[in-house]
Amino acid sequence: MCQLLGMNCNTPTDICFSFEGFAARGGKTDDHRDGWGIAFFEGKGCRMFIDAKPSISSPIAELVRYYPIHSTHVIAHIRKATQGEIALENCHPFRRELWGRYWVFAHNGDLPEFHPTAMQYYQPVGNTDSEKAFCLILETIRQSFPEGRPSLEKLYPVLREITDKISELGIFNYLLSDGEYFFSHCSTKLCYIIRQAPFAAAHLIDQDLTVDFSELTKPSDRVAVIATTPLTDNEVWTIIKPGELLTFQDGLPLQLA
Amino acid sequence: MCQLLGMNCNTPTDICFSFEGFAARGGKTDDHRDGWGIAFFEGKGCRMFIDAKPSISSPIAELVRYYPIHSTHVIAHIRKATQGEIALENCHPFRRELWGRYWVFAHNGDLPEFHPTAMQYYQPVGNTDSEKAFCLILETIRQSFPEGRPSLEKLYPVLREITDKISELGIFNYLLSDGEYFFSHCSTKLCYIIRQAPFAAAHLIDQDLTVDFSELTKPSDRVAVIATTPLTDNEVWTIIKPGELLTFQDGLPLQLA
Repeated sequence: MCQLLGMNCNTPTDICFSFEGFAARGGKTDDHRDGWGIAFFEGKGCRMFIDAKPSISSPIAELVRYYPIHSTHVIAHIRKATQGEIALENCHPFRRELWGRYWVFAHNGDLPEFHPTAMQYYQPVGNTDSEKAFCLILETIRQSFPEGRPSLEKLYPVLREITDKISELGIFNYLLSDGEYFFSHCSTKLCYIIRQAPFAAAHLIDQDLTVDFSELTKPSDRVAVIATTPLTDNEVWTIIKPGELLTFQDGLPLQLA
Repeated sequence: MCQLLGMNCNTPTDICFSFEGFAARGGKTDDHRDGWGIAFFEGKGCRMFIDAKPSISSPIAELVRYYPIHSTHVIAHIRKATQGEIALENCHPFRRELWGRYWVFAHNGDLPEFHPTAMQYYQPVGNTDSEKAFCLILETIRQSFPEGRPSLEKLYPVLREITDKISELGIFNYLLSDGEYFFSHCSTKLCYIIRQAPFAAAHLIDQDLTVDFSELTKPSDRVAVIATTPLTDNEVWTIIKPGELLTFQDGLPLQLA
């Protein structure tokens, strides 16, 4: 299977520290060697890096580790192929346009019995269950709101319903964002941490690296980091319960009905 | 306005040499400082790099200059903003999915009187005339072939017609590809060169750099490089005539009716 990393903040922040630990799992501290990818929203714009090489040996991942790109909504993924060969078109995150915004999606899990029928608006390019699930999610919410982008309160129940439906077919942990809304669904394994004042030092599990966030932040900053398993060993990560679909806003999880 | 660079080959080739000269026009030898971008097809997969910084000072452009990514279909762009502010969402190339393939588009020109009406399938994310034109092209060909991807012979006249229609509204040089088809339209300014055996040395105009392609190629290799203005000063570039819509395949231009 794969691993997910997400970030949602109230001010544009770089993800270099978290990505440093995460990328090590793509061939060094873990065996997710079948490609990786990351998407950064900057306003409505969206920058994506993907590579079919292991993140630990990809020159593009090296750029992302060291070049601080500031963003409020980030979704990253390292892949261990279950469905679909090792190829660029099967690397997550995937991206499509809906209502004049880019939507980005990454999945951890396996949906062996998932065979959605032909869709009107979206078609997968690669051959993963993940991209198919993303297309079905966008198709469903687009068909439900033909007039355009609804409020979060109206969108959430529709996303909840299609998420539950797909979840019945296997393991379906995912991160989904359009650069404003940020959703994270736990099917089996996902956790998060909120970093806010007073900031402290954090130490990675996967690399011997410590960063003192009190030296890098303003008191008003708030950052949520979401990951398949904790990235640091001296902070308390909150386990998301199986079945929970959280909506992050400005670095905080909201729990909608 | 902007500048375009495209490459179409019969075997995956890196674009480092051409991009080295091209990127210099983004702030060093010319003033296209308002962002840049490049898309590489690798099979059905598509890797994109975009940045709102000038290409000459962008760390991401530096990666692209030095890291050889091998591709048969490449589209690159450096931007001098006419419509739309300097922002990531306004950087070319733009990408959408159609018939289960990614389509990539970059534009050089200005379409001041272009205001397409609402479309069913595609909406621009940014606010450039270029992205609107791309959306209208995809919308038109999708509506013309609701059953799915047609042959090139059927697709070409539809693309020709919508291209002519948009061209009436201003300057509309563009490159468009889905990783298999590769179209280049000249409205005012576009040229190309075919490199094939016997290969020789080429010297950039924008940087003092020479590469001897005979040392790097197999006799069967063939590469077409398309650019707004010639990139080298010791090769003969073919000027594309205004109004021509060329289809490149395996490094050669076809001229369809």
